[in-house]
Formats: sequence, structure tokens, C-alpha cells
Amino acid sequence: MTAPFDKYSAARERTGAVLCVGLDTDLDKIPEYLRDRLQNLLFFNLSIIEATKDIACAYKLNFAFYEKYGLEGWEILKKTFDHIPTNVLKIADAKRGDIGNTSKAYADSVKDYFGADAVTVNPYMGSDCVEPFLNRKDLFVFLLGLTSNQGSSDFQKLDCEGEPLYKKVIKKSCDYAPAENLGFVVGATHPKELAEVRSLAPDRLFLIPGVGAQGGDPEAVLQASGAGPAIVNVSRSVIYAGDDMKFADKAREKALEYQKSLKF
Amino acid sequence: MTAPFDKYSAARERTGAVLCVGLDTDLDKIPEYLRDRLQNLLFFNLSIIEATKDIACAYKLNFAFYEKYGLEGWEILKKTFDHIPTNVLKIADAKRGDIGNTSKAYADSVKDYFGADAVTVNPYMGSDCVEPFLNRKDLFVFLLGLTSNQGSSDFQKLDCEGEPLYKKVIKKSCDYAPAENLGFVVGATHPKELAEVRSLAPDRLFLIPGVGAQGGDPEAVLQASGAGPAIVNVSRSVIYAGDDMKFADKAREKALEYQKSLKF
Repeated sequence: MTAPFDKYSAARERTGAVLCVGLDTDLDKIPEYLRDRLQNLLFFNLSIIEATKDIACAYKLNFAFYEKYGLEGWEILKKTFDHIPTNVLKIADAKRGDIGNTSKAYADSVKDYFGADAVTVNPYMGSDCVEPFLNRKDLFVFLLGLTSNQGSSDFQKLDCEGEPLYKKVIKKSCDYAPAENLGFVVGATHPKELAEVRSLAPDRLFLIPGVGAQGGDPEAVLQASGAGPAIVNVSRSVIYAGDDMKFADKAREKALEYQKSLKF
Repeated sequence: MTAPFDKYSAARERTGAVLCVGLDTDLDKIPEYLRDRLQNLLFFNLSIIEATKDIACAYKLNFAFYEKYGLEGWEILKKTFDHIPTNVLKIADAKRGDIGNTSKAYADSVKDYFGADAVTVNPYMGSDCVEPFLNRKDLFVFLLGLTSNQGSSDFQKLDCEGEPLYKKVIKKSCDYAPAENLGFVVGATHPKELAEVRSLAPDRLFLIPGVGAQGGDPEAVLQASGAGPAIVNVSRSVIYAGDDMKFADKAREKALEYQKSLKF
């Protein structure tokens, strides 16, 4: 099995860009003619994957959008993961994190059941909650650093012993594991901070959400992220580009546009 | 439908105590004769519930232990929730939290699919990530305040503008919602801090893990928590009290012991 970081590097090389397509698939937003059956979410996802798999460096699946539908949602999530080609990075955007033995169970879930290459993890509970994820060398961890929402200023930007909490989180957690195993989620809506975070963690892989519908500009984001490795996630503005039977073609067109602005 | 906080108050009245039984059920720890089939996790859970439902004020289900087994694990989780009597508080220990529309999907999952009364939520991403949970008045939120693990000192105890981060989290988030909708997870392994947190949030419901196998003493914990509302969770030392066919009876005996030391 290819190590997650190597898979990322190869996918970046192959696609020439760092586009991650976010499958935040919502029954209320897919083309109207598909909304009558929950199973159409799977049809939708597989169509988007087929249409973009030569352009996408990664797919990110946000668990919430599937958990909402209970067991059937989980099944769609699993089948979507199964359909992603092995040469594209599979990111479980689950934002998990708990005490040691519990985090181990979450790590086993995303890796052994879903077959993900990477998972997003919440740092609030500290090192022993992140460690069980890191103990699996076949799983890359994206720790939440600075998120793209307004509320990120509530705690992440609090002054903690002379610098904002998110910087403390990033500095301290760089000791948890090497760059091959641990990177960060850094929101695109904060380009200035993104550049600052890059200076703290020059060799870490950043997962950058917030481009497209959330307002971040892809070129500005890549520039702010600098020379270090990155994946830029675009969800809504790619997957909902079309609202009729041509939705997959439209998603492809949009993905191609992003690919051009996310050359690496 | 009874509001979650009222359900808690009635259950406390009825049982005379504040015992929460944690169903962190692990196939490697249930009696050996049951370990050959995953579905026995469900049999185990239902037996524990039957044996303790007149003593327990709440049941807490940690999602990780079920997600580990994929779809079949989720089904067991759902069926376990379904089996809990309606007069006992059902806590979804899922430690979720994400940007607004995503948190809404998580809230819908734990409430509409699992029928939980309460959910644990991670505060790191800030107010707009907690709000969608709070918008559901039929769902009580336990925000992670101070957790019971060693790693809690990594960030939760960092000095933030003159006080530890966890105190900032508790103070600020008390503005998010009234005591009927929002309480905190406060670890039992820190009785001194527990008392301090109580002084900051005298009327908030605390979910207190860390008693039993994790080392917290139930009486000391209740004393530190003071007069404010609380639920004290015990998992392993109740549910794994026996290792043979009498496991449910032994769990009941152990739960009765805890009930006595958790009189309220």
C-alpha cells in the first residue's frame, strides 16, 4: 500500500494541480430530478467521481452529510469511498477526537472500514487523543489548525501566552509526528494567517477549505500557502455547478477551471 | 416530548442518584462466551439496560465503539438507543462539531435518526459550530470543557489572557444558550478544577466522566461538583463487572453500589 503522503505527491504530479473535490452531498441541493430517492446521492457521487477523477488530487467526504440519513447514509458513504480510484487521496472529513482507546476506535473505523487515506482530527483534547490516529502509519492526520468559519475567532484566535491559540496548536503538534503523517486544516478565508501558519510549518501538508462558495480565491490562497504542500478543497461550486442531467459534465468543466487556478 | 433537561430532573428524582451508565461496549471486553459474534454486542447492551434501567439516570453511548464495526456497528448503536426507556436520558457521546450547515447535519443525525436527548460537542471551532445543535430545543448540548485525559493539559490548560483556556470556553459559551440547553463535560480526575468550574457555571448540567476505571472517586467528585446539576458517568467498572453468564446481574450490583455513592 502506498503511504498517504506519497499518494498525495503522485496525484499532484499526475494532475498538475492540488484540487480536492469535497463531496458534501446534500439531497436538497443535487439536481431536482434526483431528489426523490436517497440512493440517488450515491448515483450523484459516483457520477461526480467519474467526471473528475483525472483532475482531482483528492476527494474529501464530510461524514455529517451522510450520518444525517442514518444507516442508509452510512452505506452511501462507504460505497462512495469504495468507488474512489486508489490513486486519488481519500479524506475522511470526520473531525473526530476523543480519549486514547476511543480515538483508536475512530481511527480503525475510518481506515479499516472506510479505507480512507486521511482523516480530520480536532486538537482540543490534546496529544493522547491524536496519537492513536498517528499510530496508524497508513493514515494521515489533518489536525484542525485555523478553520474557515467566523466562530474561529472565539477560541482559536485567543491570545495564549503571547500568540493566538491556533499557532500554539500548530507549533506543539508539529512535535507529535513528522510531516509524512501530520498536517493541518487551515481555512482559505484567512490568507494573511495562512501565510503565517506556513512560516510555522513550512513542510506540512495543508488541507485548505473555504474556496468557492465560502469566498476564498484559489490563486490568492495558493500564493499565501507558499511552497509547502497543500490541497485546496472546493465543494459546492464544483459539485452543484449544474442542476440538470448534465450535472457531471458541468462539474467537470468547473473542476477544470479550478485545476487551472490551482497549478502547483 | 419532555425537554431533555426536564427528563434529567425527573430521572434524578426517580432514581435518587445521578448515575450515567456508559455503554462503551467492546467485543474484546464482554464475557468471552459472547465474543464470537458481533451481534452479541447488541445482546450485551440490551441485557445491561434491562438490568440497570431503574437505577440509571442516563445512558451514554460512545459512537467510536460502534463506528469501528462499520455499518453493522451503526445498526447496533441505533437499536441500543431504541431500547433505552424514554424516561432515561440518552446521551450521544459523539464529540461532533463543524461549520454551521455541517453541524446542523450532525444534530439531525443524533436527534432524528438516533433519537438522542443530548450530544457531546467539541468547542474548538467556536459559536457558529455549536449553534446548530442549540437551535434544536429537543437536544441538550454538553460542550467539552475540561476533559479527563492527560493530554487535556496540552491546550485546555494553556494560559489564555489570564486564565486557562477551558475556563474561557466555559465562560464564553455560557452566553450561547441557557442552562436548559447547554452544559459541560468536566473530567472527574480533576476534582479541584471541577470545583472551580462549578463556581463559574453554578446552574449548568455537568457530565462528569472519569469515575471508576479512570480513577475518579464518586463521592469526592460529587462534593467537588457541589449543588449544581450533574451526571456522573461510569462505563467499564459497571458494564464489565462480570465475565460470565451472570454479567448483567453483576453489572446491576455494581450500579447499585455507584447509585449509593451518587445520591443527590
